[in-house]
Amino acid sequence: MKTILVIKIGGNVIDDENALSAFIKDFSSIQQPKILIHGGGKLATQLSKQLNIETKQIDGRRITDEKTLDVVTMVYAGLINKKIVAKLQSNNCNALGLTGVDANLIVAHKRIHPSIDFGFVGDIDNINPEIILELLTKNITPIIAPLSHDTKGNLLNTNADTIASSIAIELSKSFKVTFIYCFEKNGLLNNVEDNNSIIRHVNIDEIEQLKEKQIVTDGMLPKIDNISCALKNGVEKVILCNAQNVAQIINENATFGTIFTIK
Amino acid sequence: MKTILVIKIGGNVIDDENALSAFIKDFSSIQQPKILIHGGGKLATQLSKQLNIETKQIDGRRITDEKTLDVVTMVYAGLINKKIVAKLQSNNCNALGLTGVDANLIVAHKRIHPSIDFGFVGDIDNINPEIILELLTKNITPIIAPLSHDTKGNLLNTNADTIASSIAIELSKSFKVTFIYCFEKNGLLNNVEDNNSIIRHVNIDEIEQLKEKQIVTDGMLPKIDNISCALKNGVEKVILCNAQNVAQIINENATFGTIFTIK
Repeated sequence: MKTILVIKIGGNVIDDENALSAFIKDFSSIQQPKILIHGGGKLATQLSKQLNIETKQIDGRRITDEKTLDVVTMVYAGLINKKIVAKLQSNNCNALGLTGVDANLIVAHKRIHPSIDFGFVGDIDNINPEIILELLTKNITPIIAPLSHDTKGNLLNTNADTIASSIAIELSKSFKVTFIYCFEKNGLLNNVEDNNSIIRHVNIDEIEQLKEKQIVTDGMLPKIDNISCALKNGVEKVILCNAQNVAQIINENATFGTIFTIK
Repeated sequence: MKTILVIKIGGNVIDDENALSAFIKDFSSIQQPKILIHGGGKLATQLSKQLNIETKQIDGRRITDEKTLDVVTMVYAGLINKKIVAKLQSNNCNALGLTGVDANLIVAHKRIHPSIDFGFVGDIDNINPEIILELLTKNITPIIAPLSHDTKGNLLNTNADTIASSIAIELSKSFKVTFIYCFEKNGLLNNVEDNNSIIRHVNIDEIEQLKEKQIVTDGMLPKIDNISCALKNGVEKVILCNAQNVAQIINENATFGTIFTIK
């Protein structure tokens, strides 16, 4: 089985032009088959504000009315995705931007909730990976924006972390998948105040203990659940790290971040 | 040689929700290999206005400073492109949205002009059609937004008519191309006031006479030059028509619009 890298970057990279340029240079240097999933960052909130559209969030999820859906479609699929693709092309990485609606990549449904109407927020039903597989055979690198669709003509705003783990899981049917989950810290930290207190290796059985010990709390909880879900469903290895270390981890086999494995 | 339809729609369809839905239904009903190039419509101007960005046009071309480039990237590649793709998917057309930066499809340079700085406006150097050919073999329909790139990391705002004719020409190396050029009228009109005075057939030698007789004037001049260029460079047939007639022209072989051929 061939290996593939599924890499997720978030707002801390997207919102910082220098960090993004450095990441893109690093990402382009990786010779292995790879795909990138990017989040949205602060740009959508900024644009909403400029357009006098109120931003409401519940549990970190943006309530997405029709106007907000237009904003995130413009920012995620337009501005962020195409800027990343343009920069990758200038670094000799033959990239192509996708959302979940393109070639029917990510089918979802509107979030069902007993009391909150999240609007056009999508929860994933299935990934149709054919377009990714096809692009990879042509040495084209897919760059995926966090939007899905409901097959009835509606785009849906969808969590980038969940898209990344769902794609990693789907691709594990055809590849040995390493899922590189970039975030603002250097890894899973024993002490959240100390960016050097990285836990180097975690196996899946240890995750519950980390929750019990309150080493994993708050914003880390959904991330760790995503990681756990990926490992339980076929992903070989998850590396939680800072985006600035991705190239060293891959190209030089250097040890950065936290490695999660099934055993 | 297989045949392919290269279809261009403009602002009159994109700005009118009912017209767009009707066109998408028609386009989806076409069983032949096809690609769609869409223009920008009024949405970019509206968004610029909401964001207090001044819109300057010279000779119908938007002066594209950095902020305006962000606006057209959001509107063309994000909002319009993905809404079209979502609607096509709901009509069982397996569409995928592209801009000229994706898979290096359209390489351009910033417009060179002795006195006017057009900013991030691109004039096309070359089309790399590999991605289109690849998608077509998988029965995926490419939907192309009017942006190119300079391979140095910059997106460029590029005329959709020119993109459409350039792609039609490039594809004529591999296909028998029919280029369907939709606009707001029913065809080339003998009398611009009378939408029924359609000239049914024009061969390329007659185009100069039409200019001399002032039947082709003003906004039709660049369109006719585009058509003429396409025919001289390998495109078999150009049909200038109203978007609402596309399905009948293709599926029922009905006569609508003006047919341009080399002889």
